[in-house]
Amino acid sequence: MRIGLIGTGTVGGGVIEILEQKVEYFREALGVNLELACICAKTDEELAPFRDKYNVSTDAFAMIEDSSIDVVVELAGGYEMPRRWLTAALNNGKHVVTANKALLAKYGHELFPLAEEKDCHILFEAAVGGGIPIIRSLQEALLGSSVERLSCIINGTCNYILSRMSEAGLSFEDALKEAQAKGFAEADPTFDIEGIDSAHKTALLASLCSDKHVDFEKIHVTGISQITAEDIATAADFGCTVKLLGIYHRVGDRVDARVHPCLLPKDHLLSSVNGVLNAVFLECDNLGPTLQTGAGAGRLPTASAVVADLVSLARSTDSGSRAVLPMGWFCKENEASLVPMEETCARYYFRFAAKDGCGVLASITGILAQNEISIESIVQKNVNDPGKVSIVVITEKILERKAIAALEAIDALPNVVDKSRMIRFLM
Amino acid sequence: MRIGLIGTGTVGGGVIEILEQKVEYFREALGVNLELACICAKTDEELAPFRDKYNVSTDAFAMIEDSSIDVVVELAGGYEMPRRWLTAALNNGKHVVTANKALLAKYGHELFPLAEEKDCHILFEAAVGGGIPIIRSLQEALLGSSVERLSCIINGTCNYILSRMSEAGLSFEDALKEAQAKGFAEADPTFDIEGIDSAHKTALLASLCSDKHVDFEKIHVTGISQITAEDIATAADFGCTVKLLGIYHRVGDRVDARVHPCLLPKDHLLSSVNGVLNAVFLECDNLGPTLQTGAGAGRLPTASAVVADLVSLARSTDSGSRAVLPMGWFCKENEASLVPMEETCARYYFRFAAKDGCGVLASITGILAQNEISIESIVQKNVNDPGKVSIVVITEKILERKAIAALEAIDALPNVVDKSRMIRFLM
Repeated sequence: MRIGLIGTGTVGGGVIEILEQKVEYFREALGVNLELACICAKTDEELAPFRDKYNVSTDAFAMIEDSSIDVVVELAGGYEMPRRWLTAALNNGKHVVTANKALLAKYGHELFPLAEEKDCHILFEAAVGGGIPIIRSLQEALLGSSVERLSCIINGTCNYILSRMSEAGLSFEDALKEAQAKGFAEADPTFDIEGIDSAHKTALLASLCSDKHVDFEKIHVTGISQITAEDIATAADFGCTVKLLGIYHRVGDRVDARVHPCLLPKDHLLSSVNGVLNAVFLECDNLGPTLQTGAGAGRLPTASAVVADLVSLARSTDSGSRAVLPMGWFCKENEASLVPMEETCARYYFRFAAKDGCGVLASITGILAQNEISIESIVQKNVNDPGKVSIVVITEKILERKAIAALEAIDALPNVVDKSRMIRFLM
Repeated sequence: MRIGLIGTGTVGGGVIEILEQKVEYFREALGVNLELACICAKTDEELAPFRDKYNVSTDAFAMIEDSSIDVVVELAGGYEMPRRWLTAALNNGKHVVTANKALLAKYGHELFPLAEEKDCHILFEAAVGGGIPIIRSLQEALLGSSVERLSCIINGTCNYILSRMSEAGLSFEDALKEAQAKGFAEADPTFDIEGIDSAHKTALLASLCSDKHVDFEKIHVTGISQITAEDIATAADFGCTVKLLGIYHRVGDRVDARVHPCLLPKDHLLSSVNGVLNAVFLECDNLGPTLQTGAGAGRLPTASAVVADLVSLARSTDSGSRAVLPMGWFCKENEASLVPMEETCARYYFRFAAKDGCGVLASITGILAQNEISIESIVQKNVNDPGKVSIVVITEKILERKAIAALEAIDALPNVVDKSRMIRFLM
């Protein structure tokens, strides 16, 4: 199988390295021939290290037009150029392997139906949780079962920050700085810490679980930038950890998909997934609960997933087969009906900062009662600031709509001094 | 794809149930046609519940001769009949799906090469960790990486017993009784608690990791029947849990494969895998560490894995492909060279029961020193029995050969009253 690679950055370079390690093993042990036929990048400088050993080009479209190329591997990143490259590749009957979750979340509804029309594969194991074979699991290994719920830690940057806040009592800002110093967070971390990357991946996973197109722009997303050291410490007092989760839940014909911080009991399997590790926890009808944990990103883990896709593809195409996984359902016409956030249910953690004085607890609990919110436990703590108290409420399972209404009313109380804080428990 | 099923017991019944649930979904959503063409069992009674809806037979060989059958699913259990059925099926050019790890561990070296010769698939995801797609992961998803080490909790009975001993302080005997009462252990539990089932599965996994045939009869196996409540409690004092692990480790060209109880630090990902759950922890060169956790056994989890294999097979064969995974290397001629147990290294937990009196600690530490065993920590505890003490030693990393020599010498000391106890740490 002749491979055209676009992108010689972190992951692209890793793919070249792993192919150099393993191409002979694939040929001898597996009978699979992978040939890196052309490497494309934007500039000659990027191509310089590869020029001696490989055919290189700054013209990706010319490579895509080359009829001897069987598969285009897109590892350049971004949206618009990859969209054009991959559309052209599919139109030319070439298979596609990509690690670009942002592209697939945004333009998958164009690319997947086109691939099906052209009998071409789009393989994207590396797009979600590089070291976790979750795409294959959903497309193949778990087909004897239906996924009822999926809960995932799918952004290593956020998990690193929350783990460090939890282990070392760091503030969000200090944990972020540490993550940046270690190369686990970008200089501009917005994309990760605000949950956008998690939303891309969660939308893809929710689509695969539901066989419907889940539009990432329509799912609820809250990031972790508002989580404080005090929230993490209070959660620990309640025997819980805080994790940023991507969630899918099948609700009849509708899909509940979202990304937000969650409280998890410490004995939940996801609670011990720390640092930059990713994890996907699945609850399936026939299979029961399963967890897959592994590296979420990084040069070689991601490249390793790309190479595994290439081997799968070669095995399939070497046999002359054009049978592809039907992904044509991933289209605007087959969009999932999402459960609105206000209709979802959870137990909630609320934290209120109030002036110390009689009456404030009565006012707060009064508003909760008006909104039919049952209290599971309530703790009032003195904080360092004299004259201020912190009131933590854990609710029983309630509707989001009622939680929001109560918080708005409580925030309007004269004795409540900061915006009230809320974290949902994982159901 | 026309399926001939042999076995209507727990898993066979589960497969029939899941196919009834999902056959239409497979046809409509995936374009895969699965037809349960014939159900075989030993007796008419076993077939009675299926007679109305299905073609049934007590003659498995006649079904295997039927040229309209594409795949034989063997879920009967045992060794000799399955060996004959599957040999006949492969000779007739039929693919095979099985959950029979004992059969594959014992006769895989005949069946896999025959399958390769006949261009037939043998799929066996259900044979190891039903709810964990570990076979697919090793054969496909992780091919961009090499497995350096694999450590697995692969027998639900043993993990349940050890978990209950740890959580509730039960003795081994009481935990076993509880497991039997709950249906998690057989009336004769030998096969599970002595580690034989784990050895079958570990040998299969070690074979897949090494591309060599690892003979389960040649790997070291220690079960859990000698683990005491005191060992578990002492391990907890050292911040460790005790798990029965299957271990694979690549050592140059040789394979270190074994099954025995291990001490794990409590923050190891495998430590929190409790009850009947199974888990496979992999350490791979490019990919880093990954963990897969899920149901290890049970009617629907195992059946679910069988059905997923059937879908994979149909996708492959529907395209007219006879390209199969090369498994011909799984043969006597390609046997792995095993690292002898005495050449392995680990940290060790030793527990000695001695008469309380001066000199015994000096004698023990003297023997350890003679055998060049460095002590990491040592604790002497009084036990309920007056005049007796319990001495727990944690060693630094040492050779098994030296550990065994020291234990033999210590057991011969006049003041040492019970056979010394030893548990290896996971490296």
